[in-house]
Amino acid sequence: MLSVHTSPLDAPGGGDAGGMNVYIVETARRLAARGLEVEIFTRATSSDQPAAVELTPGVVVRHVTAGPFEGLAKAELPSQLCAFTAGVLREEARHAPGWYDLVHSHYWLSGQVGWLARERWGVPLVHSAHTLAKVKNRLLAEGDDPEPYARVVGEQQVADESDRLVASTPDEARDLVGLYGADPGRVDTIAPGVDLDVFTPGPAAAARARLGLRPDALTLLFVGRIQPLKAPDVLLRVAALLDHDPALAGRLEVVVLGAPSGSGLAHPHHLEALAGDLGLAGSVRFRPPVARDVVADYYRAADLTVVPSYTESFGLVALESQACGTPVAAAAVGGLPTAVADGVSGVLVDGHDPQVWAGAVGGVLRSPEALRRLADGARAHAERFSWARTAAGLHETYEAAVGDLRLRRELAIR
Amino acid sequence: MLSVHTSPLDAPGGGDAGGMNVYIVETARRLAARGLEVEIFTRATSSDQPAAVELTPGVVVRHVTAGPFEGLAKAELPSQLCAFTAGVLREEARHAPGWYDLVHSHYWLSGQVGWLARERWGVPLVHSAHTLAKVKNRLLAEGDDPEPYARVVGEQQVADESDRLVASTPDEARDLVGLYGADPGRVDTIAPGVDLDVFTPGPAAAARARLGLRPDALTLLFVGRIQPLKAPDVLLRVAALLDHDPALAGRLEVVVLGAPSGSGLAHPHHLEALAGDLGLAGSVRFRPPVARDVVADYYRAADLTVVPSYTESFGLVALESQACGTPVAAAAVGGLPTAVADGVSGVLVDGHDPQVWAGAVGGVLRSPEALRRLADGARAHAERFSWARTAAGLHETYEAAVGDLRLRRELAIR
Repeated sequence: MLSVHTSPLDAPGGGDAGGMNVYIVETARRLAARGLEVEIFTRATSSDQPAAVELTPGVVVRHVTAGPFEGLAKAELPSQLCAFTAGVLREEARHAPGWYDLVHSHYWLSGQVGWLARERWGVPLVHSAHTLAKVKNRLLAEGDDPEPYARVVGEQQVADESDRLVASTPDEARDLVGLYGADPGRVDTIAPGVDLDVFTPGPAAAARARLGLRPDALTLLFVGRIQPLKAPDVLLRVAALLDHDPALAGRLEVVVLGAPSGSGLAHPHHLEALAGDLGLAGSVRFRPPVARDVVADYYRAADLTVVPSYTESFGLVALESQACGTPVAAAAVGGLPTAVADGVSGVLVDGHDPQVWAGAVGGVLRSPEALRRLADGARAHAERFSWARTAAGLHETYEAAVGDLRLRRELAIR
Repeated sequence: MLSVHTSPLDAPGGGDAGGMNVYIVETARRLAARGLEVEIFTRATSSDQPAAVELTPGVVVRHVTAGPFEGLAKAELPSQLCAFTAGVLREEARHAPGWYDLVHSHYWLSGQVGWLARERWGVPLVHSAHTLAKVKNRLLAEGDDPEPYARVVGEQQVADESDRLVASTPDEARDLVGLYGADPGRVDTIAPGVDLDVFTPGPAAAARARLGLRPDALTLLFVGRIQPLKAPDVLLRVAALLDHDPALAGRLEVVVLGAPSGSGLAHPHHLEALAGDLGLAGSVRFRPPVARDVVADYYRAADLTVVPSYTESFGLVALESQACGTPVAAAAVGGLPTAVADGVSGVLVDGHDPQVWAGAVGGVLRSPEALRRLADGARAHAERFSWARTAAGLHETYEAAVGDLRLRRELAIR
């Protein structure tokens, strides 16, 4: 597996680390459990990272030195792809030919490296885009910077050169076919999973006490990187509107769990300033990214998790929240309509108008009965998604890619 | 040879094509004349470029498809280095192992590809930086954008990984050692040449008639890409100052030969607007890039060629002008103090203050005797620089790099 720009060892929720990190770690673990040997190449970002780290038996993370440990923004990483590729090829050259059977690249930067490795080693390339520039640019948040043309070009090349593409949702598969001209027969839709052992239901009162949150509030939770794309500002605007509702005034607490990331409006204090402007300074808590088991506690502490993203290839946060028995109010974009069962495990909202969102969120919050019913549905819905199932799907895709290549070779020989 | 971002087949003086193109074509030609086989890889920028073009017997230009033909700016090219590398490796793989004996990369983008090819093929890498980001950023023209950090990083890697570095001047060699920590024993200083058969003296009157220039004017010539780094605006300001000198008023004609290029202030009409503001609209001619033999005619037509660049690794224009018997007023930066013999074949000027420049240029223009003396010195000075000599120097560098590697291998075997 190739994961150039973000290490599977980083905690998600800050910098460039998000759902993709979780995806790579969880699928690698389960693939190893199925008997595959997985090596994950990622760019070294600190001098104290050893060249190789065993993540779990059967999964090794390799840190490739390509450029300085600090100071290179994600946008500047294309200039390090030759260096990264050299490191990957060097590792392979230490072994007898045929060491790797398949390359699985994550995100377009890795896809560029994978394309070259595929050609050098004569093995299939499976690619997961995770996000797509053309989709992002179509759904751009106000004030966010569009993805550069070079990324669109790079993604197109990877889509063209991959043996198989993995989409997380039918929507993503449609975009790969419709926007990037992918052959539908080479696109496999495999839903990501959620760790049902880490993300479990538990009493909200105890979780609130552990986290130092108000015991008696109606708690709204945002989890994710603080960037325009994730639209945490929509949550703040909704909370400000609901605070004028006599039934809810003074009862709301908003928790924003995550660190700033990315470009555009995402400077660290933008969101704090907005909370102040909206008169919410006293009822919004900003908390930095934490380990997964503590994230689970935040979900348990919340009455409702809010996912107002402009685009979301899948929406792992929505699944994690539901696995903890906390319903979700999510934007009806990307993979979220798959991740959230509307009216059963949460509510889906069209668009990003705070008034519309306040209507949907307020409707749930004002009714203890509705909250209880959705909470019951949440865990049951999440149980339909497991990483073991995702890994099984990837394993099938790998077998298909290897089989196709073998067949093409046999036909070419005859 | 690797020349990712600019094709040796492009006419210099516009876009990204400048002295480096001339350098690659001229040295490749002469290396072929010495019995070497040269293949030059460059990125395809048009659908009508064949995969391979024979430039001259022994020199093949290979167009590698890496990204779209149009629309990718030089700053976006790092994202295509994997694709370019794949194309280069693919070509090599068509042959038996050991097809290439050495890689010579031009500019840091090519150096990144060369670094990887070197490692794959087990051959030495010789690198010519041509320009250096740290030097450019130190001498930034007003309003020009600094070179990005990713380039500094990329250059450093190439400097570290190359077997030998080629500098055009002692200044560049000093910068490679002082700013990039290069081992002085691995830096070879080899002066570029000038084509003494194409750039020859000839009567100014006939050249002016052919080019439609004033027969009786004192003609000042600028040749090069129109970008802040090349400082054509300094020439216009000097002309405006000299126009107030009673001895020169109304007698000057300024010719700017070149097309806009690059970033920052370099939008196409900036210089035309400046000419208008300075009251020079009637005495400045803007001419687009032309073939080399017509460039020679422009030099012959001029009384003085002006090279006010903020930085110039060598200053091919200065040599070409002198080869045509036209003296040069040049900034005392980079390679220009080597290319121009101060007081013998031209004048060197410190800094970029138009008043200081007007003093130096005016001093020459007001004295027909000084002009004649410098013109006589110009051709003689240029004759000390030939591409054959440059090629001989490169050939020695190549032999040294191959020899060093062989020796290191023998020592490793014992």
